[in-house]
Amino acid sequence: MRDVELQFDVQYSFPVKFTRDVFNPGNPVLVDILKRTGCLNRILIVIDSNLAAANPYLINNIEIYARSWDSVMRIAAPPFIITGGEVCKNGLSEVEKIHSLINAYHLCRHSFVMAIGGGAVLDAAGFATATAHRGIHLLRLPTTTLAQNDAGVGVKNGVNMFGKKNFIGTFAPPFAVINDLDFLDTLQERDLRAGIAEAIKVALIKDRTFFEWLYENRYALRDFKPDAMAQMIIRCAELHTEHIQTNGDPFEQGASRPLDFGHWAAHKIEDLADDDVRHGEAVAVGIALDSLYSHYCGLISELELYRIMSLIRALGFKLFHPALAKMDIGESLNNFQEHMGGELTIPLLQGIGSLTETHRIDTAKMAKGIELLADKYVRKGSTNDGKQRAHGGKTGTGSVLS
Amino acid sequence: MRDVELQFDVQYSFPVKFTRDVFNPGNPVLVDILKRTGCLNRILIVIDSNLAAANPYLINNIEIYARSWDSVMRIAAPPFIITGGEVCKNGLSEVEKIHSLINAYHLCRHSFVMAIGGGAVLDAAGFATATAHRGIHLLRLPTTTLAQNDAGVGVKNGVNMFGKKNFIGTFAPPFAVINDLDFLDTLQERDLRAGIAEAIKVALIKDRTFFEWLYENRYALRDFKPDAMAQMIIRCAELHTEHIQTNGDPFEQGASRPLDFGHWAAHKIEDLADDDVRHGEAVAVGIALDSLYSHYCGLISELELYRIMSLIRALGFKLFHPALAKMDIGESLNNFQEHMGGELTIPLLQGIGSLTETHRIDTAKMAKGIELLADKYVRKGSTNDGKQRAHGGKTGTGSVLS
Repeated sequence: MRDVELQFDVQYSFPVKFTRDVFNPGNPVLVDILKRTGCLNRILIVIDSNLAAANPYLINNIEIYARSWDSVMRIAAPPFIITGGEVCKNGLSEVEKIHSLINAYHLCRHSFVMAIGGGAVLDAAGFATATAHRGIHLLRLPTTTLAQNDAGVGVKNGVNMFGKKNFIGTFAPPFAVINDLDFLDTLQERDLRAGIAEAIKVALIKDRTFFEWLYENRYALRDFKPDAMAQMIIRCAELHTEHIQTNGDPFEQGASRPLDFGHWAAHKIEDLADDDVRHGEAVAVGIALDSLYSHYCGLISELELYRIMSLIRALGFKLFHPALAKMDIGESLNNFQEHMGGELTIPLLQGIGSLTETHRIDTAKMAKGIELLADKYVRKGSTNDGKQRAHGGKTGTGSVLS
Repeated sequence: MRDVELQFDVQYSFPVKFTRDVFNPGNPVLVDILKRTGCLNRILIVIDSNLAAANPYLINNIEIYARSWDSVMRIAAPPFIITGGEVCKNGLSEVEKIHSLINAYHLCRHSFVMAIGGGAVLDAAGFATATAHRGIHLLRLPTTTLAQNDAGVGVKNGVNMFGKKNFIGTFAPPFAVINDLDFLDTLQERDLRAGIAEAIKVALIKDRTFFEWLYENRYALRDFKPDAMAQMIIRCAELHTEHIQTNGDPFEQGASRPLDFGHWAAHKIEDLADDDVRHGEAVAVGIALDSLYSHYCGLISELELYRIMSLIRALGFKLFHPALAKMDIGESLNNFQEHMGGELTIPLLQGIGSLTETHRIDTAKMAKGIELLADKYVRKGSTNDGKQRAHGGKTGTGSVLS
């Protein structure tokens, strides 16, 4: 009988734009993107409730913008305000609301959902958009540091299920990403800070020069100076998009996931945390732990470890979260392996700016790392708000390791 | 600021195999596919309830097969019997059950779901599989004529929502497709016949020679002669896979969908039908209607129309379904456009074996076609079971058009 081996490529492309004041009618960035379809575009707007609360004129501004460009875009339905933060990703209820709107307002596959908000909102709205009619166009307008330099520029979406982060989701490139840096002005300090953790991560695994830049600019970043923040976000987004373009596995069909450095522990902290820990805050702790483990394995020097820990702390992150102490290391690694698929593969540092991988974690050694971080946390207090600790200096070296 | 235009390709490949007696331990087709992963493969089995009822030894046979190849495969959980037929696609309840099993039995992204059943089961199980961990490996074992020659070899999945067919779904190529022709032996006549409609369709739009072959073999196919059925399925599956590989738009990002010839009406018939009309039965009516319309537009000759209608009837299909009479043509076309996206694009025939497209349907002309089919249906009775009508001969010409 005639067997067939199907082979085909699917080509994807999407722009990642940086701008300010995106809904000023004089700003053509959004309409220039919409004009690519060559027709009048119907749009469903999904807005993060935190953003809507912080920026009460936003919806009105979007409406004025749409009216000024009514040959290009039409708002198809009243804007949907989605609960901001991780809660919108717990289960399918918000996803189903978006599906209902897509149905009720007759959005077709060539219509748009414009999702404006933090990473969790983009993830939930992105999953709804990717699955309605097998994929409506998604415009992502990330509004937090984390969303602009990391999740918002990627090709994934997802919601949590069975207490497992992103258990349900797809790979679905957006139609376009527009990073409006002015949105950062409406953020609380925690949301401004949290995303810087992903910049530390991507610098550690890919770009020593960027790490040095972060280190040199740590006080400007700690104080959220706009120029430093803009440069950090743009470089971090660049490194993420370069990775997607060049790593040869944009939809992560293999087991290797270098961008997930520090993430096995971070995911578990998010699952176990009683408080509303930010993803970036959990990642900072995960980076600290896996950097320590990399040092225990002889992969980075004591000085390198010290510089990493100093940077994390100078930026105002904690190096420990109480959920770490509750965590079963073996189970956490199993969950991570299950989500990634195949053999356990944990990225570790090999010096600053490059990566190696291990398929086996020495849980005793990892527990020792957790204990050390816990001990420092308990002994030194937990505020770690950066401004108090920014001048820790060289004498800190011992405190990281002993 | 530095804008980026991300561009990347994702490469897909999967085998479509034809075999018999796939779970005979001496048959290496399945294990040869599983060996491609290079590791021990954990599998969740999802079986169509209609198949399980018709083939009570199936689960036992699969278990014996798995034990004989236990260095390659392990059954990870008790087989899940999913309600066969369109009902499993209505809403997310069956999808959520599969997600629960994937969670409970710790299937990772590199594990397998092996879905065995008709097109509806493959669609629902496929959606669950594509969205758990952002995509587990899917093995499709289609068991109906329709699934083997059409849906089962494609790259789509989906479930119905808001009374709209496939409102929710994704594009997600399977890991492999295994067509075991022996499964056809367990089918009821209706399920054996229904899928032949897709062979007529693909012949009409792509391959005049295949149409002539179908016409010449219409009595063998009407009687479900195994050799004729096998040849029909294999050629039809080939034409579908060729289309996916070569049409340049495997994930249907554009508006053109040539494989949906006859489908705008078929989808609406399925939505409106009070009985459990099979997809293929609805497609046969849709083909009849759009062939008639193509003739009204001067795109196919009276003789060509006659041959098409004769073939459809000789194979035992009805040319009309009562839902056609209830259908609002404009609304049905709008629903179709909404699902496809962009401008209304309806494939029409341009002679037998090739296609054209129209962006405007003359609803009066279409209504005239429906009336003609209805009139014939009412006047001539509705059984149309093929065996009675197979010898209609030339004198039928007038009855199609007047």
